Formats: sequence, structure tokens, C-alpha cells
Amino acid sequence: MTVAASAALVDRARAGDRVALARLLSLVEAGGPAAVEALARLYPHTGGAWTVGITGAPGAGKSTLTDRLLTRIRGQGDEVGVLAVDPTSPFTGGAILGDRVRMQGHATDPGVFIRSMASRGHLGGLALATPQAVRVLDAIGTPWIIIETVGVGQVEVEVAGAADTTVVVVNPGWGDAVQANKAGLLEIADVLVVNKADRPGRDETIRDLDNMLAMSGARDWTPPVVQTVATEGRGTDDLWAAIAAHREHLEHGDELVARREARLRDEVRAIVTDRLGQRAAALCDGPAFDALVARVAARDVDPHAAAASLLDPSGA
Amino acid sequence: MTVAASAALVDRARAGDRVALARLLSLVEAGGPAAVEALARLYPHTGGAWTVGITGAPGAGKSTLTDRLLTRIRGQGDEVGVLAVDPTSPFTGGAILGDRVRMQGHATDPGVFIRSMASRGHLGGLALATPQAVRVLDAIGTPWIIIETVGVGQVEVEVAGAADTTVVVVNPGWGDAVQANKAGLLEIADVLVVNKADRPGRDETIRDLDNMLAMSGARDWTPPVVQTVATEGRGTDDLWAAIAAHREHLEHGDELVARREARLRDEVRAIVTDRLGQRAAALCDGPAFDALVARVAARDVDPHAAAASLLDPSGA
Repeated sequence: MTVAASAALVDRARAGDRVALARLLSLVEAGGPAAVEALARLYPHTGGAWTVGITGAPGAGKSTLTDRLLTRIRGQGDEVGVLAVDPTSPFTGGAILGDRVRMQGHATDPGVFIRSMASRGHLGGLALATPQAVRVLDAIGTPWIIIETVGVGQVEVEVAGAADTTVVVVNPGWGDAVQANKAGLLEIADVLVVNKADRPGRDETIRDLDNMLAMSGARDWTPPVVQTVATEGRGTDDLWAAIAAHREHLEHGDELVARREARLRDEVRAIVTDRLGQRAAALCDGPAFDALVARVAARDVDPHAAAASLLDPSGA
Repeated sequence: MTVAASAALVDRARAGDRVALARLLSLVEAGGPAAVEALARLYPHTGGAWTVGITGAPGAGKSTLTDRLLTRIRGQGDEVGVLAVDPTSPFTGGAILGDRVRMQGHATDPGVFIRSMASRGHLGGLALATPQAVRVLDAIGTPWIIIETVGVGQVEVEVAGAADTTVVVVNPGWGDAVQANKAGLLEIADVLVVNKADRPGRDETIRDLDNMLAMSGARDWTPPVVQTVATEGRGTDDLWAAIAAHREHLEHGDELVARREARLRDEVRAIVTDRLGQRAAALCDGPAFDALVARVAARDVDPHAAAASLLDPSGA
């Protein structure tokens, strides 16, 4: 795509053209010079969206909660974007028919934009691709962006944890199921949800969470523990109030600026590392590299000198 | 260390000075320009050693088997080096007194050089540090180098798998204990040892291994399954014969050259990646980086442009 074409796409997406938006997201996710060009043009318009990460074990009810939040946000007249990084999410087509049918109501609502990130490139790429997709939605003026990720795997947890407000969804009795990931999930939680709160074991789970929060020491913000039964819509208002309270907490202190700057810092570092990684892969491939390795094998040149000659051919 | 001093150290180590050897290993493991200089000087003298990787679950008996192999190798008059990458190994001081006392016999033998790699830098560094230590021992003329690693964790398995002959040690009933790592361990095995073969479940374990080997399809070399009771010295001759047979197989075909060249290829690539990673870390640190991130946060510059300006300051 030419620079002019990518600029036109940005302008059309910002004017509300949904087809242009979808193409812009694909462009950005694919990477390359046209994506970089488009992101540069979008970037000055970003910073207005509030991002909400929703994560938890498969089957915890993240999608149903997301669905309830969509209804809540649309009810107050706001537009909302959903990025589903969860391969089991009905938003990505991975769940049972009942769920999928329910989501369809939002899918045809022009105020809701849903994008599956689950199959975008390899997993390692998600950590880079998701913030770029957030940026596109942010720049076209979407006030709320929900990022739904399954809370298994470091990348997905990081992606959810990079939101302004991160909601961690657990179920009664969750402790045994996700023991290994428990600490990591609690660490990123701004709001804790005990979904399926009509099931046995709810009280023990709440006590368990309270204990862990107490042990983790004093902090500016203590994550509230909200009870929901998402399938019946119970607790949605409490969850929404908790998200709003966390937003107010961040916006009335220095923390929002610090958190967002820390995320940008991580992002610039990730782009630099990714570019240098691509450079390493390109250097260590092809006939010239093969010939160099043959010289190393013949003891003509040692491995460090070979690496140095790849990195700085002029210095050889 | 100056270039002249590192050159002198190499010469003294090659002349048989053990103190110089230990210092040389420390120098090489620490990395940096003096290490690179020393390795360049050592490199033309390498290629004569045969490396034997020994890996398996903690408690499988790797150290006791290594001890038996040391006796076997010393019995034929050869010198031998041991690099212990296993924090539970008695070679690294991590085991019970009985083991450690037995090892002491070898530790005072001037024909045996034992080096603990377990605490050398962070884990990620082991994959780079161990081949360099092998190179030092190789260059001073050590004909046999045993690399003992615990077979949990990708890096340790890779380090053991990078030997000329890789011995994977299992026990009767191992299948349940290391299920997750089973395929990875079998893939790198040139020789399989069922140690503690006097215990119940031996026959099932051997059948299990034979089945898995049969399923993995035809290959040039089928790993023999050797039974040992290392604590009593039973089976050591069989193990040594299996290692010798594998060596003969590799030396009488093209595979040895191809394998060693593939390892050098991986090593050059790892050095290039490591250097570029260091460059990324250096670029993304310090006041200039902080100032740049502040400009990104202020929407003066977008993250990709910021990364590009770090990578190529002249192009800004």
C-alpha cells in the first residue's frame, strides 16, 4: 500500500467508515512500512480511550461478562470496541452456539466493533499487535476498548495487564484449578470478579482472595472483589461501578500518567527488540551465512569473530 | 585483562597449568573483550574432544553414572573434564554427603577436571557459557568432556543435546514423573539408560521406550536402551560400549561433520542475537531514552518513529 493510500484509509476510518476501519486494523496487524506510516498518522489522535482488560481461566465467564458490559456501555450511549485475544471466546467463533447467538445482537450494532485477535500471527506477535489495534480504535474516537484474553500463558496475561483497568475473573473453587497462575493474575488485577457466585464455595473463594490481597501489602488501590452471575446479569452494575471507581482513582492521581508512560516505554523497547531480532534473523540466513559457518567449521574464523563480521561487515 | 595477559593465560593452560585453566574458564564465562580474545586464540586448537551430554530428571542417578564413567575413562588412561550444569549434582555441591565424598576421589585426580556451571550467571546465559567452557577444555587437549545437566527446563535439555553423544537417564516408572518432557528428552537421546534397573517396573519402562522409539520412525541410528545399577557399578561397561558405538557411527558417516556444523551455526546465531539484545537493552536505558519516552507520551513522536530514531539516530 502506498503512503497516500494508507493516509486515505486513516481519514476514512476516522470519518466513521467501518470497512476502512477493518482494513486499517488488518494493515496495522500485518506490520511493515505502510502499517508504521498509518500508525504515525493515527498516533496524535490517541489517548482518549479507556481500555479494560478482562482475563481469567477458560470457562470463567469472561465473554458473558464482556457481553453484559457491552450492553451497559451501549446503554449510556457510548461506542465500544472489543479485541478478543481468547481462542475460546465466542467473539472469535470458538464457543457454543448459544453464546454465539447472544453475541450476534452486539455484532450487528454499529456502536460495537468486535475484532478477533486470536489468530493474528503467531503468539509472540500478539504482545505487539494488540496495542497497535487498541491504538487504531483509540484514534478513531472509541471511548471504551475491552481486551478479552484467556488467562493462561504469559503473553495473554501481559496483554490484559497492559489495560488501564484490568479485571480478573475467577469462579468459586478456582484456587485449585489455576494454582500456578494465581499470583500472576492477582498481581495485574485492578478489579476481581467472582463470577458464577451462585455456586458452592463462593465464600471460601472470597475469603481466599481477601487473604491474598491482605498479604500482598499496602497499596494505593486495593482491588475490590465483585460477585457476579453473568448468565443472569446479576452484579453487572457492581462491576461497572468498580471499573468506574478505579478509573476515577487513576485519573485523580499521578498514576494514570505513570502507568501509560511505563506502557509506552515497554512498547518502544519491544519494537526495538523486535527490529533487532529481525535483523539477527536476516543476518543469520542465506548463502553468505552458510559460507561463513563453513569457515568457522574449518577453524578459519572463530564464532565470535564470525558474529562480529556479520554485525559489522566493514570492521572485518 | 590485557590481550597479552589473556594470551599468556591461554599458553599456560595449554601447557597444563591447572590454575591458569581455572582462571581461563572464569574469564571466558564472564564474557567481554578479553574472553573473546582468549576464545579466538583457543579456537584453532579445538575439535579433538568428544563431548558426552548426560541428562535426566533430578534423582535419576546422573551423577553416579558420571562418576562410573570417570572411573572407566581414567582406567584407559585418558583425561576427562566434567561440566556440571545441574544444581542438584554432587559435582556442584548440591547433594548428600555420601555422594560428595565419593566424588572427592576424582576431584583430587589431576586427570579429572570438574567445573560447576550451575551458578554461572543467570540461566539464559548457560546456553552460551557452556559451549565456551567446552571449547576451553577441548583446546587444552582434553579428549573426553562430560556435560551433566538436569533434564528439566529447555535450556538445560538443549545444552545436553548439543553434545556429540547425548545420554538420557531414566528410571523404572519414569513415564508418569516426566510426562511433559518425555518427547523432548527422547528426541535428543543417542543412548538411553534405564538406571536403578533393579527396581520394579523396569520391563515396562524398557517396553515403553522401545515402543516410543519404534513409533518415532526410521533413522540412521536407533538409540540403544542400556540397563544400569549405577550405585553398584552394574552396566557401566554396557553404557561405555554404547557411547563408543555411537561415536563410531558418527565418525564413519557424514553426520558428525553435519552435526558439529549445525551446532556452530546455532552458536554464531546465538552470539549475534545476544549482541543485538545487549544493544537493544543499552538503547532503551538512560536519560536520553527517558526523554524520548516523555516525547512519545506527549504525542510528539509515535512509538515506531521513536524506536527508529534509537536504532538509527542519523536517520532522524
